[in-house]
Amino acid sequence: MTALHLVKEPELQDDRARLFARAEEISADLARRGAALDAEGKPPHAEIARLKSEGLLTALHPVEIGGGGLDWVDGLKLVRILARGESSIGQLLGYHYVNSQYVYWAADDPDKAWDLGAETVAKKLYWGAAVNPRDPGLTLTRQGDHYLLNGKKTFSTGAHVSDRINANAALGDQIANLVLPTDRPGYIANDDWDNIGQRLSDSGSVEFRDFPVYETDFLLPLVEKDSAPPVQATFNTPLIQLVFVNFYLGTAEGALAAASDYVRTTTRPWVTSGLEKASDDPYILERIGEFRAALKASAALADTAATAVQSALARGRGVSARERGEAAIEAYAAKVNATHVALDVTARVFELTGARSTAAHHRFDRYWRNVRTHTLHDPVFYKAREVGDFALNGRVPEPSLYS
Amino acid sequence: MTALHLVKEPELQDDRARLFARAEEISADLARRGAALDAEGKPPHAEIARLKSEGLLTALHPVEIGGGGLDWVDGLKLVRILARGESSIGQLLGYHYVNSQYVYWAADDPDKAWDLGAETVAKKLYWGAAVNPRDPGLTLTRQGDHYLLNGKKTFSTGAHVSDRINANAALGDQIANLVLPTDRPGYIANDDWDNIGQRLSDSGSVEFRDFPVYETDFLLPLVEKDSAPPVQATFNTPLIQLVFVNFYLGTAEGALAAASDYVRTTTRPWVTSGLEKASDDPYILERIGEFRAALKASAALADTAATAVQSALARGRGVSARERGEAAIEAYAAKVNATHVALDVTARVFELTGARSTAAHHRFDRYWRNVRTHTLHDPVFYKAREVGDFALNGRVPEPSLYS
Amino acid sequence: MTALHLVKEPELQDDRARLFARAEEISADLARRGAALDAEGKPPHAEIARLKSEGLLTALHPVEIGGGGLDWVDGLKLVRILARGESSIGQLLGYHYVNSQYVYWAADDPDKAWDLGAETVAKKLYWGAAVNPRDPGLTLTRQGDHYLLNGKKTFSTGAHVSDRINANAALGDQIANLVLPTDRPGYIANDDWDNIGQRLSDSGSVEFRDFPVYETDFLLPLVEKDSAPPVQATFNTPLIQLVFVNFYLGTAEGALAAASDYVRTTTRPWVTSGLEKASDDPYILERIGEFRAALKASAALADTAATAVQSALARGRGVSARERGEAAIEAYAAKVNATHVALDVTARVFELTGARSTAAHHRFDRYWRNVRTHTLHDPVFYKAREVGDFALNGRVPEPSLYS
Amino acid sequence: MTALHLVKEPELQDDRARLFARAEEISADLARRGAALDAEGKPPHAEIARLKSEGLLTALHPVEIGGGGLDWVDGLKLVRILARGESSIGQLLGYHYVNSQYVYWAADDPDKAWDLGAETVAKKLYWGAAVNPRDPGLTLTRQGDHYLLNGKKTFSTGAHVSDRINANAALGDQIANLVLPTDRPGYIANDDWDNIGQRLSDSGSVEFRDFPVYETDFLLPLVEKDSAPPVQATFNTPLIQLVFVNFYLGTAEGALAAASDYVRTTTRPWVTSGLEKASDDPYILERIGEFRAALKASAALADTAATAVQSALARGRGVSARERGEAAIEAYAAKVNATHVALDVTARVFELTGARSTAAHHRFDRYWRNVRTHTLHDPVFYKAREVGDFALNGRVPEPSLYS
Repeated sequence: MTALHLVKEPELQDDRARLFARAEEISADLARRGAALDAEGKPPHAEIARLKSEGLLTALHPVEIGGGGLDWVDGLKLVRILARGESSIGQLLGYHYVNSQYVYWAADDPDKAWDLGAETVAKKLYWGAAVNPRDPGLTLTRQGDHYLLNGKKTFSTGAHVSDRINANAALGDQIANLVLPTDRPGYIANDDWDNIGQRLSDSGSVEFRDFPVYETDFLLPLVEKDSAPPVQATFNTPLIQLVFVNFYLGTAEGALAAASDYVRTTTRPWVTSGLEKASDDPYILERIGEFRAALKASAALADTAATAVQSALARGRGVSARERGEAAIEAYAAKVNATHVALDVTARVFELTGARSTAAHHRFDRYWRNVRTHTLHDPVFYKAREVGDFALNGRVPEPSLYS
Repeated sequence: MTALHLVKEPELQDDRARLFARAEEISADLARRGAALDAEGKPPHAEIARLKSEGLLTALHPVEIGGGGLDWVDGLKLVRILARGESSIGQLLGYHYVNSQYVYWAADDPDKAWDLGAETVAKKLYWGAAVNPRDPGLTLTRQGDHYLLNGKKTFSTGAHVSDRINANAALGDQIANLVLPTDRPGYIANDDWDNIGQRLSDSGSVEFRDFPVYETDFLLPLVEKDSAPPVQATFNTPLIQLVFVNFYLGTAEGALAAASDYVRTTTRPWVTSGLEKASDDPYILERIGEFRAALKASAALADTAATAVQSALARGRGVSARERGEAAIEAYAAKVNATHVALDVTARVFELTGARSTAAHHRFDRYWRNVRTHTLHDPVFYKAREVGDFALNGRVPEPSLYS
Repeated sequence: MTALHLVKEPELQDDRARLFARAEEISADLARRGAALDAEGKPPHAEIARLKSEGLLTALHPVEIGGGGLDWVDGLKLVRILARGESSIGQLLGYHYVNSQYVYWAADDPDKAWDLGAETVAKKLYWGAAVNPRDPGLTLTRQGDHYLLNGKKTFSTGAHVSDRINANAALGDQIANLVLPTDRPGYIANDDWDNIGQRLSDSGSVEFRDFPVYETDFLLPLVEKDSAPPVQATFNTPLIQLVFVNFYLGTAEGALAAASDYVRTTTRPWVTSGLEKASDDPYILERIGEFRAALKASAALADTAATAVQSALARGRGVSARERGEAAIEAYAAKVNATHVALDVTARVFELTGARSTAAHHRFDRYWRNVRTHTLHDPVFYKAREVGDFALNGRVPEPSLYS
Repeated sequence: MTALHLVKEPELQDDRARLFARAEEISADLARRGAALDAEGKPPHAEIARLKSEGLLTALHPVEIGGGGLDWVDGLKLVRILARGESSIGQLLGYHYVNSQYVYWAADDPDKAWDLGAETVAKKLYWGAAVNPRDPGLTLTRQGDHYLLNGKKTFSTGAHVSDRINANAALGDQIANLVLPTDRPGYIANDDWDNIGQRLSDSGSVEFRDFPVYETDFLLPLVEKDSAPPVQATFNTPLIQLVFVNFYLGTAEGALAAASDYVRTTTRPWVTSGLEKASDDPYILERIGEFRAALKASAALADTAATAVQSALARGRGVSARERGEAAIEAYAAKVNATHVALDVTARVFELTGARSTAAHHRFDRYWRNVRTHTLHDPVFYKAREVGDFALNGRVPEPSLYS
């Protein structure tokens, strides 16, 4: 797949430009409606539908099957663009990219992956996952010629909007890797996501109650519990961490853009400043300069880290654990940096906009609430520790859903 | 008044201890109900009633008229204690202290002040104010043997709960300093305070529509517009800034206390930490230590600044502009420091509590929203500038409602 | 001893004022010569002699034996004042206070302590110590009617200027607590202190080579190795940490004072600022305001922590381990805060003074070098952890020479 | 020139790889001798000679005249690599690149530039400059068939090691742009660079005393005072700022590398850590991770900013003021970020290495002294302001030697 973008024809370049232009348009529209969407905090069915119709969900699939043919460097930039408009939509796009691309790396059988991809493109399917590793797992039991799936996962991004779900389930001492359609009976997306941020991310709990599972739902043959997956199949972690990086930064960029608009149009110059316009205030200008500089640096690292992970991934099955680890460290360094920058900028844009901008209807606090909520996914100090352990001791992170 | 606390009898010490004990009890109760109160965001009638019944509103009035006889150092500590439980209640108590004590410094006629004080203590009156200087003013017009007051103030802390309101109004080229009861026709407290923080502070707009004003409502004889008030009458600014300091710090102390409880009872140790309890995590312990150290330093400065302002105020009418300025600078330095510390701690307590603590029902973001909202009252960079201008150039701030 | 300052007579107040005035004079003189003293980096014999002649070394001894009768709150303020002039001199004064006061808490025999104190006052002795716990220890061996001391300690503040040295030495399985005069043969202060900061602190290694020790040199009867000392005897650690706090802050205050002088007299306004004087630059004023606010907060905590430790110490032999621990935590919180503030201010004063202030002859980097060097005495992250462990888990630090 | 690197032949790629390998070798050697070089603080004649012999001085000249054909993106990376070894050498290489490339953009006559370039490559000349704009200028007076140059410039990087010097001088109401050889009588490089950092940068004052100047020394025809140069000729400012960025970051990377070595080999685990190796300490690992993440982000921005400036420069004479301004803003954002990161990392590496690492012979403070000294070249707050003014108000900086 990755080789494709090396021989980009003019036509592909046009497609790429078109996808980026669509992303910018959707993002601008989301920014306009962002306060209202955050206030509602509902699963964003209409927004996902628009991503589908504009071709953004299939941007990373191979062109041969009708996808956009973009690589991860571009895919992650699309996440950032959308997050500028609305943070949860950026998150949902990114999660979908990882969940739906996962089959290309994880499936033993290339045809299986290809078929899943082709169906995904044809039907414009949204892919979610139910793999939160801090929960007790799901269990499969045999039932005649098929299986029944039971269990609950506390968090599950895109629970209501998913067409397909990646899930792992225990079958005796073995683990089944499943790709499940959500339109079967027994799939229950609960309405229990009510958090202070990422309120559109549809991250409530998911239950399976006697959900029927068939052999064709198995992405892989059964594996032993605790058996290590092939290196290539562990790229979802550095990639999902880069999704985080990019939607954190996009959210902060969106906050700074909204605050700058407000300063230009609404903020009054401070009484002792002697100025006619807040937009000439030396302290406001300095802060905007600092925020921009920090955001640009973090975004530059996000892009170089994406390139590193993309390059390692492009080695395919031959990629070594060390190569995966070194690329992952780039992503984790980007994660550490983006966490700090996005929290700082989203908390401090109020210093630009001033007292009246705290009126609830602006919901200017949503940027910080969004970043604050998701940056707790895994503690930033342990990510920094991993980066330090590599730098000092040459150790690469143990592959897991967190590292 | 201030001389009184120098001859504190054992009895007074008992009264002081009782008031502090009451404040702690009320604060603890507010902490338990804090999430619900924030969710409602209504004017806190019941909470102000409790402050009245427990004697906290009159704590700073002279003992001779039935007040608690406490000085400002103690009064500001009471504000901090209450803000630990609920930030807006701390704010409301502090604003009331400044508004109701103002008459002692500002009234030309000591009997006038004394009478207002005695009535306040007897009736347990809550004092608000409508003096936001960034708004167009109120205007008085003659109407037979009295006046009519008209106009609107955008922000007015305690709009619904106030029994008395300090207000300034223009009468031709002169300014009237008024103390107004809120139970006359024509006083309208609008329900338009809906901001992201300090949601119980009842800070909506206030209107006066043909509100009748009588000669007895004048705190002072009419003064010329732009005439400088006596130095003593300008202490409301350093004192209100110290109110800010103390409720910011109290709010942050409350956030750290709530987060620590959560860590001890609910946070799970991180998966790679190798620990059995989150409360033994080295990174969490370090952060709590850092937060405590910063809060302690800021609170220590808050107390020394309160002592400086109290001492200057105790000079009475003889206090010089320079003495007022030097004391004010202590308060403003405390303001600068408390702003940074309270914002940092309230934003970062989530690093202790972890991902699940972002569930909306905890409303753990309210501490940051509260501090974020009010710290924009006046820009911290201009306060820092005032402190620097004094330190470098020996200039004291020009007295105003902001400095 | 501590009871004395509660009944301060006017005469004592005069003495106190005189000592503070002397400290200010010496500090101002040191500030003038600071760059030259730092360049030389020699043991400060003349400076210690001046502290002796002005009565500063005996300021904390009881008035009954000719001391100044000050408590620790005042003593630590004197350290801060001197450090404003020259950081190492502040350090040396503080170390001497702890080393020379130690005998009052540690000696079993009050007469022993009293005699040592009286001799110290009479002869104006400077007390050092050789107790760095990270080194292998000193050993005593019997030699006829006395002992011989042998061994080396890598760091020993005031090695050349000390008249007396506190030392611990192993005698078989027991530990001897010794007070040793430095004018006996076998005491060798090496000239090996050459560090980037605290260059006058005379902190080189000390050796004892067949140094004769007599029974009268024993402060205490022999104790078993690893036997816990009485609680009161462990106050040297919180007190020495408060010495650190105060000379860090004094050094930073000195840096800000020197930088402010330079801004007023020498710094040119920036070319695009449109200003005639650097001292009106909004960014410079803001920074000075921030530095002042941070320094004031940290100093306020230093003082309240000193009061807490002084109060616990004043309980004498009855002080409990818990009381000692709670007071120590106040000191350690102050240490954490002062470390950050002093490093930040001393590194950033250059932002005020500008490019030409980096000329070597100003040696404006010495403030940072001084603070940077000594703040590594024990890692600030472990101190923060101790404070956090107390706040979260209620644990007090295990008494040691570091905690 | 810039078109050349678009048609890089394999041979050129080999040359590029060779130059980078040489840079790494020289850097490693400088790192080994860094403490000694800093202690001496002499003009680095031998080090510049090595840069000459290894082809690094001519790396950016066109291949047609024997140069390395590298673009600015690569050139700035070479600066960063060398600064890892020794900060001043990185600075000197970067200044030389700007000074010697300047003729290609500034000369009206392409042959003039080409001839100067060819001579530079052939003779391996080092180019300095005497253009500090905050000094009074140099003056030219006619003397028969030539001119005499007189005047002094306070700072002049590479004063002793320069073979050629760019200088501006007043001739009546006009300004002459000169390229001067330093081996004529009347050129005096004073030995007055003695600053706390960049001690090898040879940045002392330069004087011209009746220095003979000939028509052939004029880079351009005389221009009117205050006449604006062509846009292309103003690229030295964004490029020299990128030189700063890269040697700041290189210096900080060098500091972290040296500190990491020390931790691995020398730092002892903290007494209460319970660890056997300092390199496993959670706080040390976290800090190294944070420093790495920040350095990576800043370096990523340095590279993207270099690409932006290189692209604008490649437009040649057609580049617009707006294009120059937008590219410059990228560079200035990088400057703001690199300033903070490099100051923070170089000041805090001591937290990793611990108390004994402050021994003067390590000279570990030199990294901070180096960055601290040069980051004052122009105030970071005014650079942040420029970035903010562009972001908020769309204004590009007024071209000058500072912006």
